[in-house]
Amino acid sequence: MRADQLAGDRPQPAGRRREGGRAARRAMRAAGGSDRAVWPGLPGGTFKPLSDGDLHRIHGAALSVLETTGIADSTPEVEELARVKGCSVNQHGRLTFPKALVEDILAGAAREYVVYSRDPAHADLEVGGNRVYYATSGEAVTIFDVEARGYRPSTLVDLYDCCRLVDRLENIHQFGQTVVPTDLEDVGTHDLNVAYVAVAGTQKPCEMAINSAVNIRPAIALFDMALGGEGRFRERPFLSFGGCPIVSPLRFAHDSLEVLVETSRLGLVSDIAVAPQAGATAPAYLAGALVQVVAEGLACLAVVNMVNPGCPMSFANWPFVSDLRTGAFTGGSGEEAVLMAAAAQIGRFYDLPTSVAASMTDSKMPDAQAGYEKGITAVLAGLAGANRVVESAGMLGSLMGCSFEALVIDNDMLGMAQRAIRGIEVTDETLSVEAIGSVALGAGHYLGHADTLRCMESEFLYPELADRTSPDTWVQAGSQDILERARTKAREILASHYPDHLDPKLDARIRDRFPVALPRSAMKPGATG
Amino acid sequence: MRADQLAGDRPQPAGRRREGGRAARRAMRAAGGSDRAVWPGLPGGTFKPLSDGDLHRIHGAALSVLETTGIADSTPEVEELARVKGCSVNQHGRLTFPKALVEDILAGAAREYVVYSRDPAHADLEVGGNRVYYATSGEAVTIFDVEARGYRPSTLVDLYDCCRLVDRLENIHQFGQTVVPTDLEDVGTHDLNVAYVAVAGTQKPCEMAINSAVNIRPAIALFDMALGGEGRFRERPFLSFGGCPIVSPLRFAHDSLEVLVETSRLGLVSDIAVAPQAGATAPAYLAGALVQVVAEGLACLAVVNMVNPGCPMSFANWPFVSDLRTGAFTGGSGEEAVLMAAAAQIGRFYDLPTSVAASMTDSKMPDAQAGYEKGITAVLAGLAGANRVVESAGMLGSLMGCSFEALVIDNDMLGMAQRAIRGIEVTDETLSVEAIGSVALGAGHYLGHADTLRCMESEFLYPELADRTSPDTWVQAGSQDILERARTKAREILASHYPDHLDPKLDARIRDRFPVALPRSAMKPGATG
Repeated sequence: MRADQLAGDRPQPAGRRREGGRAARRAMRAAGGSDRAVWPGLPGGTFKPLSDGDLHRIHGAALSVLETTGIADSTPEVEELARVKGCSVNQHGRLTFPKALVEDILAGAAREYVVYSRDPAHADLEVGGNRVYYATSGEAVTIFDVEARGYRPSTLVDLYDCCRLVDRLENIHQFGQTVVPTDLEDVGTHDLNVAYVAVAGTQKPCEMAINSAVNIRPAIALFDMALGGEGRFRERPFLSFGGCPIVSPLRFAHDSLEVLVETSRLGLVSDIAVAPQAGATAPAYLAGALVQVVAEGLACLAVVNMVNPGCPMSFANWPFVSDLRTGAFTGGSGEEAVLMAAAAQIGRFYDLPTSVAASMTDSKMPDAQAGYEKGITAVLAGLAGANRVVESAGMLGSLMGCSFEALVIDNDMLGMAQRAIRGIEVTDETLSVEAIGSVALGAGHYLGHADTLRCMESEFLYPELADRTSPDTWVQAGSQDILERARTKAREILASHYPDHLDPKLDARIRDRFPVALPRSAMKPGATG
Repeated sequence: MRADQLAGDRPQPAGRRREGGRAARRAMRAAGGSDRAVWPGLPGGTFKPLSDGDLHRIHGAALSVLETTGIADSTPEVEELARVKGCSVNQHGRLTFPKALVEDILAGAAREYVVYSRDPAHADLEVGGNRVYYATSGEAVTIFDVEARGYRPSTLVDLYDCCRLVDRLENIHQFGQTVVPTDLEDVGTHDLNVAYVAVAGTQKPCEMAINSAVNIRPAIALFDMALGGEGRFRERPFLSFGGCPIVSPLRFAHDSLEVLVETSRLGLVSDIAVAPQAGATAPAYLAGALVQVVAEGLACLAVVNMVNPGCPMSFANWPFVSDLRTGAFTGGSGEEAVLMAAAAQIGRFYDLPTSVAASMTDSKMPDAQAGYEKGITAVLAGLAGANRVVESAGMLGSLMGCSFEALVIDNDMLGMAQRAIRGIEVTDETLSVEAIGSVALGAGHYLGHADTLRCMESEFLYPELADRTSPDTWVQAGSQDILERARTKAREILASHYPDHLDPKLDARIRDRFPVALPRSAMKPGATG
């Protein structure tokens, strides 16, 4: 097969259609017209950990790595495609990329994509530019048990419960797979069950990793059924498929590379993650870790654009960090905070749609450590302009576990982070010179001033769980910490919010066709099956 | 008395002497020569919440407010001084400042000052430029009781215990008054007892608020004794005196204005705080709150420079935030995070030495809420280039209380924040292109690479309390949260670290001359008195 055939019929990359209403909505929000103090897609980019010179040096170094060292373990299919475009295989059997080719690919790559919501009450994700969204993800294999202060293996019902929690948590804009259903006996059905949960548990935009390329078309068939007809998903994709096409340092991962080729061929967003670990599978110098992850991300971008030019890919450079005392991954460090922010800034430098991993913690429970590790990493990623901040809610223990209570707490934390990211609008009205003069000469306080009443909801975000009462009131109410309040709130939502996103008849037809393992009883109290 | 006499003999402003060693040390650190991953005075300024245009508009609006509305409740002394310089008193009896005068004052104001350490083991604070330091402060009237999950009135011993804790906490660079000794029966002795604690409990640079101008000279006399001779303090001031010369909106506070005049006349740093509260004593629009606080801060700067041109002042704009549901102060919001960062950025815009208040929380205990509220506000203030981030450790409950456990936890959190502020050094060596090539073709991992060993301590900060063990290890060790570990650590320090910063004979002479109320038994187990 010739390389130009490999690229298939090159369907128009999905998610690039634009609607007029969206631009108008964005303009209204930019003008302060939102009735809430935060909203999906706030503008990041005010934090720039790297100088312009730094950015150019990292770019140049990454191109050198791709041209000289290249990437090992390519598939014959990708290798052939790449040779046609001008790549070579060097004496070590590694695929190398000429600098000019990478520059051309960068020039022609998709600048944005959309992940649609299935309900107008939730925002579509317009991934690109300086717009910032927060999403779950993580694929942990355990769930935190708050009573036992320990962890138990995660199940498919846990995944569904995470999903319907996220459905209710306003500052989380996308649901991605939080936990792996370790109770699924047949791992072959894993992908389709995750796809089913995404449809059943929320109508927010979704993301899922695909273990095997052969599951993509069946998953799309499931989504088409949920949307009411063949081809509907491709019209408004509400989910992006991911994978990890790189084994660091600088090798392709066979199965995920096939997923990358398949999603590109189908014109779908490749929602990948490239996650080397500084000090272990990437250089310990943070700058070097960036060079390697950029080279690895650019190699994936090259594959996508060689298969289907202009097909969107998440430029998803996730430079992780080791604790060099043990070699173990640490997700909640200052090094991680600035490194992920720098990765986001590099994506803005290239004007590519990005995701990064942030709001991770090494703490095993939602305590003060989890709070500051999550808060600092989450806000810096957004301020640096990461389009999608994933792993951003619920994860604990260096991504080893997920917690319902942490999901609820992190929703509040992300609201705070988003309010900081929104920044300060400076207009003649907000500068308040007249108000200052009249209050100084008059009442002496602003509590009853018309401006105060006018901007009470639009300027200020009121947290749901964070406590602002006086010490006396707090003690009288039982001296609860936020974990205790989160436990109550998570239980309330899980006891009451059973979404009816799937009509029962449609659900039955989906269950007839696909190996859905989620018991009906988990989806509605008293239901059977 | 004529205004030019009021300004006194204008002694050379203190703290402007520079030592050659300091510049060399800073250059070494800038070149990555530190043996620790963070250090005092890291460079901020990479986070810019306001655009250049925003900065100019806020500046212009603040000048308009000073020229038209002006400041009420001036003292005759200040009014006379100001008239000579070109100010007027308007029909409302308010002192107004011509724009050109304020611009001239800004042009001539001190750009930096130094607060010295009494021990070379601790860094001097070189306050100015883009250098960032973290300090305690807060003056709460209660201490958190971790066992009772409640608060009790704070005492002089509590203040001393906070001080000796800070003496041991590496990421806190300055001790400022955390709590008010509510057990001091004679409030007239308050200032001198706080001064005594600062000398007895630490040799780090210090800060204290002064309630009455008449206590400044006695406090300096106490410091001179501690340093071994009259005039020694003025040679190397290790403490700055503060106060709140403004009652917002736009009025002078009588006693604190007198402190401001007195410290300026003495050539000391005026380490003030201007703290209007958006929605209550400042406009609710965040931009308007900035305009007012800048106007108030510039009025103080004008007074200092009219009394003693070039005398340093902390441009200490602390725009606080109200929760408009109740009107109460809230210190741990996203609005607060971005507003304080913007205040720091404005100080950088003027090139004045700044302080801001951050790392505040509304939570009543060190839980996840405290963690993320402190983490987000603390890191953004530093990234925006605040020279001194005060209230940055130990405070809880919207500054109503202080906690020994929070001091210890916040020290770890501030280390993480400082590592993020340090950023990423990009050099030929750190870009690691050769290392990447050799590892990719060779071992396939970086754990044993020479670069990894070389930068293990200089690139990575290892937290003391934050847990990075595996979930299993954590459970086996008893599933402790960071609050439990902090409780243990705070008790260990308080049970063992009794600093001997004052020789017993010297201490006896100080106690003979000043009304020291701190019992000797609190300073050494088994001591009497």
